[in-house]
Amino acid sequence: MAGAGVVRETPILSSRTLSERCGATVVLKAENLQRTGSFKLRGALAKVAALGEKCAGGVVCGSAGNHGQAVAYAAQARGVACEVFMPVVAPIAKVEAVSALGALVRLVGADVRESLDAARARGAEASMAFVHPFADPEVIAGQGGIGLELLSQVPDIARVLVPVGGGGLISGVAIALSSARPDVEVIGVRVDADARLTIADGIAVKEPGREMRGMVDRWADELVTVDEDEVGEAMVFLLERAKLVVEGAGAVGVAALIDGRFSPRRRGGSTVVILSGGNVDPGLLAEVVRRHETQAGRRLVLLARLPDRPGSLAPLLALVAEQGANLLDVQHIREGIDLHVRESAIQLVLETRGPAHADEVRAAVRAAGYAEPPLRR
Amino acid sequence: MAGAGVVRETPILSSRTLSERCGATVVLKAENLQRTGSFKLRGALAKVAALGEKCAGGVVCGSAGNHGQAVAYAAQARGVACEVFMPVVAPIAKVEAVSALGALVRLVGADVRESLDAARARGAEASMAFVHPFADPEVIAGQGGIGLELLSQVPDIARVLVPVGGGGLISGVAIALSSARPDVEVIGVRVDADARLTIADGIAVKEPGREMRGMVDRWADELVTVDEDEVGEAMVFLLERAKLVVEGAGAVGVAALIDGRFSPRRRGGSTVVILSGGNVDPGLLAEVVRRHETQAGRRLVLLARLPDRPGSLAPLLALVAEQGANLLDVQHIREGIDLHVRESAIQLVLETRGPAHADEVRAAVRAAGYAEPPLRR
Repeated sequence: MAGAGVVRETPILSSRTLSERCGATVVLKAENLQRTGSFKLRGALAKVAALGEKCAGGVVCGSAGNHGQAVAYAAQARGVACEVFMPVVAPIAKVEAVSALGALVRLVGADVRESLDAARARGAEASMAFVHPFADPEVIAGQGGIGLELLSQVPDIARVLVPVGGGGLISGVAIALSSARPDVEVIGVRVDADARLTIADGIAVKEPGREMRGMVDRWADELVTVDEDEVGEAMVFLLERAKLVVEGAGAVGVAALIDGRFSPRRRGGSTVVILSGGNVDPGLLAEVVRRHETQAGRRLVLLARLPDRPGSLAPLLALVAEQGANLLDVQHIREGIDLHVRESAIQLVLETRGPAHADEVRAAVRAAGYAEPPLRR
Repeated sequence: MAGAGVVRETPILSSRTLSERCGATVVLKAENLQRTGSFKLRGALAKVAALGEKCAGGVVCGSAGNHGQAVAYAAQARGVACEVFMPVVAPIAKVEAVSALGALVRLVGADVRESLDAARARGAEASMAFVHPFADPEVIAGQGGIGLELLSQVPDIARVLVPVGGGGLISGVAIALSSARPDVEVIGVRVDADARLTIADGIAVKEPGREMRGMVDRWADELVTVDEDEVGEAMVFLLERAKLVVEGAGAVGVAALIDGRFSPRRRGGSTVVILSGGNVDPGLLAEVVRRHETQAGRRLVLLARLPDRPGSLAPLLALVAEQGANLLDVQHIREGIDLHVRESAIQLVLETRGPAHADEVRAAVRAAGYAEPPLRR
């Protein structure tokens, strides 16, 4: 297929909503639309190309997901063998994605650090070229391709928000921008350590060594931190408004803007947010949406006491329907509630328009005489 | 904001997976990334521009969603008043999206046809320009902008799959392609009538009149039909692989390719699939994902009988964990099951790797002596 062995110039998309919130033009760099679903492909292709004959014996890497897919893709495109060491707890979907690209997956190690060590040892033993996920000049240069694209795509770029995990992306982008446009501010965005094992796993699993910390310190003008809830909100915002699937690690820049952890100080110029990847399990995505809807008051859980006789539930359901609430779940509750033997308790899960609507529905149900059952203490 | 009053040239993205399945290069035209989330903006902007002074008194339209957002956006960009008539049952999110663009929403009519009639009457009465969603030459010409972009973006275009609702999009695209490239095949994709009220509502709500049916017959080289399950699978495919949020109506072309309802007969040239919009409620998206995971064997519902004494559940949960299944829900079941008074029944909802893994987990649970409780008949 045409262009299979090269990176895709990923599109930029201006965001009206984010621009209005920040009082400055915000442009999304949709690197989640890169082949293999993340920026990692840029570094992997650059590295494999630089290796040339040195990777005739194949390449090997350690990764929890995105880097593994990227190296597997690059190896397949160049026609060399590839082994990817992944932690034994790696999600099935990520293992399958790497296998589908023709690489041999080896599940070794309790975490990525152990997988990395195993991959490095395997490379030395089998004369395969080891490709580090970030601490490598050619990998960093490859990631820098995003910076070069931004120079032509966003001529008035004033600042760029970059997710920080291992530090390869921010170093590459900053270096690429620095010679042509040293005035562009580079803001690194990290996710709070507590959130690392869950939705932003893409930037959680790296432990930047001293050298990479030095790179990040040198190239980031500012570092901000977001928490997991903010990342989840940003993911839903991107789904709903930008129509883009972005993984937690890729959504941290939008999270920083939405929640005001970062706001442009100078006026003028565009603020670019790099959406670094989109490899998120659809099931996790559904979970993030559900949590968002509860937090946004779009889910109302109502308990009501009913007389235990035929036909007592229907009028309650008719009432909530009249109020414009959408019934998602209905359940009889028997435990932990003090009821008369002739009564039963019902739990309704309703979809509402928001907190104010939820309050109206709750008030209407109470006004119609449906009391909340007393919890047993 | 720069460019706010003009359409966005939406990106094209080649799809490796679809290309491999079809044996021909497949390119996605990501019109879901258009401002307002759908192609409708093209027609609305073209129409409002063509009206010029004739819309000084404002514009009015009837719509279930996308056209309403598009006209509201175009009116706001041109600084004219806008009223959007929507059915009383319109989803809250769509009403809010139109309001957020500064238009006055009027909830009139049981369906879009009635809203359209009310909007037309309002236009005549208030001297506002009525903008029809598709049966209008300038609207059709505006949608044709997609065809013009494709000519430069995909020089080797051989065929294009276009969602068919009212017929404005396929007519516009076909007309735009016909003068420069009459050899390009235009394939219309419809959704089965039964699916119309649910996930593909964007193309369900139109009733092409005789004139538009004539247009579709004239410009489509072929018409294929997909069903609702296929549309849902296509939406999940696009989320998972292309990292794009596409509404049901916008995903019909991908559905036709995935399920083999259409396959390119001639070799050579690119097959373009227009993803016409991305306005889907995140809650519905989560629902589509859940259904997909059940169908793909990623959800296993297990019933097991347990002795009713402390500590009897823990070993069962340890067993399924050992099998690599992820626990999503656990519930005690009391009704409709014949149990000894000293027994209880448990329902587990588990996430598995697929049908084979689900079978393994089920077999392991049975082998450990956890019988399925007998249903009461």
